[in-house]
Amino acid sequence: MNILDKLNELRSLMQAEKISAYYIPTSDFHDSEYVGDYFKGRAWLSGFSGSAGVMVVTLSEACLWTDGRYFIQAEEQLAGTSIQLMKMMEPGVPTVSEYLKQHLQANDVLAFDGRCVSYEAMKEWQQLMPEVVIKTDLDVFDQIWPDRPALPSAKAFLLSDELSGKAMTDKLAAVRESMKQHQADWHLLTTLDDLAWLFNMRGDDVSYSPVVLSYALISMDEVMLFVDETKFDEAAKAFFKENHVKLLPYFEVYSKIETISGKIMLNGKRVNSRLVQLCHEIIDLDNPTTLMKAIKNETELTNTRNAHIKDGVAVSKFMIWLKEAVQHETITEISAADKLEALRREQKDFLELSFTTIAGYKEHAALMHYSATADSDVELKPEGMLLVDSGGTYLDGTTDITRTFVLGPVSDEIKRHYTAVLKGMLRLSMAKFLHGCIGINLDILARGPLWEMGIDYRCGTGHGVGHILNVHEGPHDIRWRARPNTISAVFEPGMIVTNEPGVYIEGSHGIRIENELITKCSETNEYGTFLAFETITMAPIDLDAVLADQLSDSERNFLNAYHAQVYTKISPFLNEGEKAMLKHYTRAI
Amino acid sequence: MNILDKLNELRSLMQAEKISAYYIPTSDFHDSEYVGDYFKGRAWLSGFSGSAGVMVVTLSEACLWTDGRYFIQAEEQLAGTSIQLMKMMEPGVPTVSEYLKQHLQANDVLAFDGRCVSYEAMKEWQQLMPEVVIKTDLDVFDQIWPDRPALPSAKAFLLSDELSGKAMTDKLAAVRESMKQHQADWHLLTTLDDLAWLFNMRGDDVSYSPVVLSYALISMDEVMLFVDETKFDEAAKAFFKENHVKLLPYFEVYSKIETISGKIMLNGKRVNSRLVQLCHEIIDLDNPTTLMKAIKNETELTNTRNAHIKDGVAVSKFMIWLKEAVQHETITEISAADKLEALRREQKDFLELSFTTIAGYKEHAALMHYSATADSDVELKPEGMLLVDSGGTYLDGTTDITRTFVLGPVSDEIKRHYTAVLKGMLRLSMAKFLHGCIGINLDILARGPLWEMGIDYRCGTGHGVGHILNVHEGPHDIRWRARPNTISAVFEPGMIVTNEPGVYIEGSHGIRIENELITKCSETNEYGTFLAFETITMAPIDLDAVLADQLSDSERNFLNAYHAQVYTKISPFLNEGEKAMLKHYTRAI
Repeated sequence: MNILDKLNELRSLMQAEKISAYYIPTSDFHDSEYVGDYFKGRAWLSGFSGSAGVMVVTLSEACLWTDGRYFIQAEEQLAGTSIQLMKMMEPGVPTVSEYLKQHLQANDVLAFDGRCVSYEAMKEWQQLMPEVVIKTDLDVFDQIWPDRPALPSAKAFLLSDELSGKAMTDKLAAVRESMKQHQADWHLLTTLDDLAWLFNMRGDDVSYSPVVLSYALISMDEVMLFVDETKFDEAAKAFFKENHVKLLPYFEVYSKIETISGKIMLNGKRVNSRLVQLCHEIIDLDNPTTLMKAIKNETELTNTRNAHIKDGVAVSKFMIWLKEAVQHETITEISAADKLEALRREQKDFLELSFTTIAGYKEHAALMHYSATADSDVELKPEGMLLVDSGGTYLDGTTDITRTFVLGPVSDEIKRHYTAVLKGMLRLSMAKFLHGCIGINLDILARGPLWEMGIDYRCGTGHGVGHILNVHEGPHDIRWRARPNTISAVFEPGMIVTNEPGVYIEGSHGIRIENELITKCSETNEYGTFLAFETITMAPIDLDAVLADQLSDSERNFLNAYHAQVYTKISPFLNEGEKAMLKHYTRAI
Repeated sequence: MNILDKLNELRSLMQAEKISAYYIPTSDFHDSEYVGDYFKGRAWLSGFSGSAGVMVVTLSEACLWTDGRYFIQAEEQLAGTSIQLMKMMEPGVPTVSEYLKQHLQANDVLAFDGRCVSYEAMKEWQQLMPEVVIKTDLDVFDQIWPDRPALPSAKAFLLSDELSGKAMTDKLAAVRESMKQHQADWHLLTTLDDLAWLFNMRGDDVSYSPVVLSYALISMDEVMLFVDETKFDEAAKAFFKENHVKLLPYFEVYSKIETISGKIMLNGKRVNSRLVQLCHEIIDLDNPTTLMKAIKNETELTNTRNAHIKDGVAVSKFMIWLKEAVQHETITEISAADKLEALRREQKDFLELSFTTIAGYKEHAALMHYSATADSDVELKPEGMLLVDSGGTYLDGTTDITRTFVLGPVSDEIKRHYTAVLKGMLRLSMAKFLHGCIGINLDILARGPLWEMGIDYRCGTGHGVGHILNVHEGPHDIRWRARPNTISAVFEPGMIVTNEPGVYIEGSHGIRIENELITKCSETNEYGTFLAFETITMAPIDLDAVLADQLSDSERNFLNAYHAQVYTKISPFLNEGEKAMLKHYTRAI
């Protein structure tokens, strides 16, 4: 079936059901960022494989919205499919809501699977288009996708308190404290990373995200966890029983929620609209677990530092291998990514990659979230640069690191761009700022050196990172524009955030350098509490494209001190030959 | 009458009227920032002379709220008055609303003059304390302030199009365009600077602010301007008549508004609650004139640059005089301020100072908005520093400039602080940034060098400046924390903003360096439109406290280029001796 056939199939079904527009998010029942294969109907239907994108199909048009990270990739993958690319946030491009409002008349039917659409989105459309009929119970992929994958059934396990740093019972007590504060009788929790954090459980139900498909309903004296209990071993089931957590079948939440009386606290931006429609009375608030989870405890921080040393050993070995091997061996983007994965797998307590490795050579690196396919894969040569954005989840933490490796001669322009990216990354790493700042206050530190050159990167500068969890998490981030309807959280000690400015020149090159930072207390005085960052990513930043004379003294000193630390922490895990190379790659400049 | 007597007088009146709490803002009928003498009841009652502060008096307590600029001054002036200082934004200090909520019981009466309190504030209190009786028609100062000044009756005049750059009729057309867009039948405008801008009129009804007490009601075919028409000459009256602007008595707006049918567009945050209560139907929006006024036209920009040269000549002459004369003459804070005023008055088309000159020597400069009085005035010595924040309004524009002059030896700590302030001021001046940025994105450029030292200044970094108008205007600003319920405007080409980081060490010293910047288009490319700043303030920055080795190359180059420009523009207006000194003060470092 090609894309046009699939669209025809969908439109036949729409005509039969008298539907004018069918909306397809990239979403599971839990508003997860990455979704299991069962939920990848948009990718199957459109051929666009990026992780972010939503579609609207009408009887005459099909449109796909995605963000700046994916413009180039989506243009290529949608060519010839009849699907129009809608570049989000670009001038003149309607939002999904604006598009629907323009294209739907009174009594037209807009349909979607309400379990995959948030309550907020549905509410917005109801208010915007009161004359349009909204149908929320149609999952077309059940009918038009012949070999749709099954829902996942991976095994799940519990984290010991030594790994989580905080017992489930303590976390439940904190959630109940928040419920009291907001006078809630129940809390409905549906976001998978919040559930994994709260119950100290991990699984493998979504690629790269060690979560367990589940829902929870919590009152002051009851906890119901809706999950396929066969995923757990007997010890885990006994633990839940002992601690009064009742396990109920995964889908039973939809019938249970109807029977609940009292005020239900939930996050209407994240809970699916079907569930909210079944609630009698809600208190719409951010999940308290989101902030609790973002502020890592001392155990999580200590373990995460350790995960970054293991991850840094893998990346350092990869760098040493790559820069030498590319001179005489046949290496491609995919084989390089495989090599790096193999090096990570050698590390103790490695669980899985934290996301699909991005290994983009030369102009491929300009595609911000490029993922090589058999078709696109190219051989690396001893020239230009390879951008590698990758990470691992270990039993002690999750990592996210980008390095752009210099494989041979690069142009002066590339060196200027590389140096500006590095300057931005360093300036943000060195920041000291008053408590109360959000990412919008800090973004210009990383982005400024590029803006000075008239260059921007069309994405944020940084995101939170989960602990043995999702590689992207909130509620804090670093970006220059506020997200609509969302207030980024104030930085608190214990929050981890990435620092990843970049340059993306279409058809030419892409550069990104990414370290992870822990937010720490720097000093408290009459002005308030000053915070600063501790860099925890431990791998060399390729010096071969750095124009050292363009670094300020403080930038240069910080870089040299960082590299000295990388050598100290990573070299004990290397052989003599590798040590010598690491010494060179971490040389003071 | 001392403060305690005045409070007793007020409380007797409150008891007679059965009032539990009387609220006293620092506000006129137009929510002006600086108010005429008639409206300075708070200063008269409390003895606190700062420009910002509100009071609540109950039968047993009296409290005064002010912001960080005034903490030190207020502490001194309120000592022994029984009035408690409430430090706004400090941890644990209740807001006015929280205080009222805590102290008022059901059926208690909260009273104030509704003409001096915004609709927003009154609405908030009604919602917060539905059980409290709110009385809005009591102006106690009519009864307890024996020698209350009269309302001002200064002459007013019209600006020619050569001075305003845009005819009143064009401005009215733009306002009507906005009214159409918002489906408004009427627009009620009450903010004096907006009125002055819209009608191209200027006057002298508020100290330092060349505005005219007035209100306007505008429909698609009518314009009513409520103003004491004796303020205008016959030509002005004829001009208004020709252009169908009907002049009506100032207070008549209160009876007229009751007769209006149709939707009235107004800014509920700024219009007084008495007026809004008299409206039948409102559309609550920011005044369209606020943004229009902030984006200066080419005439205004050209004229403003010229005003800054004249102002720079006065400040440069002052600096040359001061640094020499302090070695052997008797100079005090007040006499120095007088000298500077005299130098400004020598300049062509000078109208008045744009605010009270702040001339603070040594530790007085730590009081952010210090204004010397006969009691506080001190003699300057050839040591330490004098902070001078001042400005003028000329027929071609309004200025605001701060320089901190080195009068003799200063400590190494002062030099470190001075250099950090300078670095911040320069970094912000050099910023290049994408259109879409607000001040919150940029603030850390100015504040960062101080934060690095664990120092903060408890105020914003910059504000808009009016054109022959208020020295403080919005809707843009530069600050790191969002103001509650206010969204700062995105920077647009043509906006003027101040750049004034500082260090304030209580009991020791204060440093502020302030230039004004024009926002300009830098380049437009595939990433969007990049903006940058043009520095228009033209006076030397005292180099005698600069630690040159702490400036980066780009900071040093920018400073040297700025000083070269100051010399080029200012020296033609100086005598030979002054030129030589200016050459020295603008030397490259």
